Amino acid sequence: MQKITSEDIEYIAMGSTVLGTGGGGDPYIGKLLAKEAIKEFGDVSLIKADELDDDALVVPIAAFGAPMILVEKLFSGDEFIKAFEMMESYLGRKIDAIMPIEAGGLNGVIPFSIAAQKQIPLVDADGMGRAFPRLEMTTFTLHGIPVSPITQADEKGNKNVYHTIDNTWGETLVGATTIQMGGSCAIGCYPMSGKQIKEAAIHGIVSYAKSLGKAILDAKYLNLNPLDSLIEKAEAIKLFTGKISNISVKTEGRWNKGVCEITGLNEHQNSLMELDFQNEFLMAKKDGKSVAITPDLIVLIDAENAQPITAETIQYGTRVVVLGMKAHKQWRTEKGIELAGPKKFGYKENYTPIEELNKNG
Amino acid sequence: MQKITSEDIEYIAMGSTVLGTGGGGDPYIGKLLAKEAIKEFGDVSLIKADELDDDALVVPIAAFGAPMILVEKLFSGDEFIKAFEMMESYLGRKIDAIMPIEAGGLNGVIPFSIAAQKQIPLVDADGMGRAFPRLEMTTFTLHGIPVSPITQADEKGNKNVYHTIDNTWGETLVGATTIQMGGSCAIGCYPMSGKQIKEAAIHGIVSYAKSLGKAILDAKYLNLNPLDSLIEKAEAIKLFTGKISNISVKTEGRWNKGVCEITGLNEHQNSLMELDFQNEFLMAKKDGKSVAITPDLIVLIDAENAQPITAETIQYGTRVVVLGMKAHKQWRTEKGIELAGPKKFGYKENYTPIEELNKNG
Repeated sequence: MQKITSEDIEYIAMGSTVLGTGGGGDPYIGKLLAKEAIKEFGDVSLIKADELDDDALVVPIAAFGAPMILVEKLFSGDEFIKAFEMMESYLGRKIDAIMPIEAGGLNGVIPFSIAAQKQIPLVDADGMGRAFPRLEMTTFTLHGIPVSPITQADEKGNKNVYHTIDNTWGETLVGATTIQMGGSCAIGCYPMSGKQIKEAAIHGIVSYAKSLGKAILDAKYLNLNPLDSLIEKAEAIKLFTGKISNISVKTEGRWNKGVCEITGLNEHQNSLMELDFQNEFLMAKKDGKSVAITPDLIVLIDAENAQPITAETIQYGTRVVVLGMKAHKQWRTEKGIELAGPKKFGYKENYTPIEELNKNG
Repeated sequence: MQKITSEDIEYIAMGSTVLGTGGGGDPYIGKLLAKEAIKEFGDVSLIKADELDDDALVVPIAAFGAPMILVEKLFSGDEFIKAFEMMESYLGRKIDAIMPIEAGGLNGVIPFSIAAQKQIPLVDADGMGRAFPRLEMTTFTLHGIPVSPITQADEKGNKNVYHTIDNTWGETLVGATTIQMGGSCAIGCYPMSGKQIKEAAIHGIVSYAKSLGKAILDAKYLNLNPLDSLIEKAEAIKLFTGKISNISVKTEGRWNKGVCEITGLNEHQNSLMELDFQNEFLMAKKDGKSVAITPDLIVLIDAENAQPITAETIQYGTRVVVLGMKAHKQWRTEKGIELAGPKKFGYKENYTPIEELNKNG
């Protein structure tokens, strides 16, 4: 067990935004809520999954919606507590610990605000090891764990509970009401036992996010280049260096879908990179050839400060570096690729691991 | 208290379809489910609201969706029982009686199937006195009774509970998921006490529907013209006689929206009637001039057999009679007109009672 302080939140938010691969929400409001709660209620205990009792009740709490809307339409903070309390009331028992559903700027830190307020520990694990655009794209689904019951609360006071026949229906139905709610809400989902977390979750993700955040933010104290420091810590592949030359995006349902074009600089002069995204970056093509494919991670980094850029905040003219990172091994199985690989997003291409795609690069 | 038999269901379905004013669903599947349940579990007790204990728990159960889909996508019947049982489980108590939410071909008779299976009485009352396209358009809303909790079940097994901040949000959120479910589902809503029913419901609507059905179906035994018999019983105004000459319709969200044109015959030769509908008929214009406006009832009758036609089954060339009927007095108040009058559906026109519009006709 370790204590997570307000300073740690900065690191975790930064590292989670890297792992968010363009999605997972902008960290600003999440950091604000987490820091406020820690200030008022004290530091949060981060525990390893192994420290959980097998029959402990653990519930991921998350912001749900279109990232572009999550930036514009502020959360009050109350809706997360409501989603939490609705789950306790629906299940008729206390929640023992909370966890993030995904590593993302917003969803990687929001759970700290609830953990602080409810004085319960936060488990150092998530269900994605990165961020994904759909609620069913979790390692919990890979282990047959139901997303239901799902509790949903919005800032207006609407409060719903869903019991869907499978995890894809969870995304479908909660997604439909979220759009009506104005594009964002808070959810509780995948209520699990300690035993299930131990078996199905991606472990140590919060600590890992923190270490990535430190690599970027503390580099200056060590006279290191923050980008090199991040690349080393993340074991990342540097896929491209360039300048944002075009960005097309639309909000479709609860997703920001689009393509970002990057014109090469330095060693990539005369090359063009295209990054497809649906909330998260899903496919990176260099001069028409794939160099990174979901579920592997594609991370867009601002060359100025080595900080990650979320897809909804990409700006024309920004100098960027594109990094690729290996997906967690759970995603590199046949079932993992089926659930979150390229075919799932309508690509004809097969998944090829990033290290194979770039072995000569 | 009176016993409702399988034969009574025919009358009630027919009369409810008249009151459904083009909406409320085609009665076929509802009759089938109600008759099957009565055959298996016995006749249903129809009770007056006055017979309810003040603290009795009464819940309307209804089919929810787009009428055109309700015809094509059959209900299994189970989803209504699920919506019922979810409400009991959510409220933590037994439901003492059931009632229709609206008078309509489908929703006027579906509750009989649940009453039979659950061996509980059905209250001779509803919340509309007709059918309306939106869930919040009830006399319960006029009395400040919340639509929530709403329980929702589909034939696939999805089961959700909504707690919305107001009754309009109930329509919005349940409507959004219903579209995803394929366009139809079963709901339980407006859980009420006996006292609330006594104050807020439209009383005697099931008996009234039955009497209208009898007027049509039994006329032949009495050597009466069924249309005249219906007009007399319903105190209806004969607005138009003609032949369907055009019909345009689209499914928009969970609504069938469209216009039906009727070319005049006999005394209306050289005249044209237009009926606007959104599930239900909302506005009747004769040669461009309004002759009936929601919340007053506009009923399309097949001239062949004096039977009502629902908007989704209108066929080109059918000879028809258009009847107008006064809305219940609850709808003719300022609040009633605000909730279900022409402005609510985007018409610029003010509501004028049908008897005033036709005083010289």
